[in-house]
Amino acid sequence: MAKTIFYHAGCPVCVSAEHDILQLLEAGNVEIVHLGEDNSRVEEAEAKGVKSVPALITPNGNVLHINFGANLSDLKS
Amino acid sequence: MAKTIFYHAGCPVCVSAEHDILQLLEAGNVEIVHLGEDNSRVEEAEAKGVKSVPALITPNGNVLHINFGANLSDLKS
Repeated sequence: MAKTIFYHAGCPVCVSAEHDILQLLEAGNVEIVHLGEDNSRVEEAEAKGVKSVPALITPNGNVLHINFGANLSDLKS
Repeated sequence: MAKTIFYHAGCPVCVSAEHDILQLLEAGNVEIVHLGEDNSRVEEAEAKGVKSVPALITPNGNVLHINFGANLSDLKS
């Protein structure tokens, strides 16, 4: 089976992200929040440091911005 | 216990990333490649569409660029 590969280069951002991804795999679950459908949580996401979506917030508060879909500011009603 | 939260907004990039993250959790494992230590795989990463690290390549070939650590081009020897 094809597998997921995490490429990094030992930089601080890389090491932190590696730790976060491995922690996510260990936990095995994630809460999915659709900010378009639940607009009341946009401020919560902003307070946690989310600048754009999609993004993951890890249990220790790190923000992992993944690719770029939309600016959080564009989701404010 | 604090949990990981995935914020998205229903955009195509978001939906694709959500699918990829859930698939990653289901698979439960990931190969870690340190391009600084294994420079011979930089070309492999580039061929898969990696522009910067850290990045995840999913089993179906999607590239998830996570935050920004370094440009792949800076890792070429």
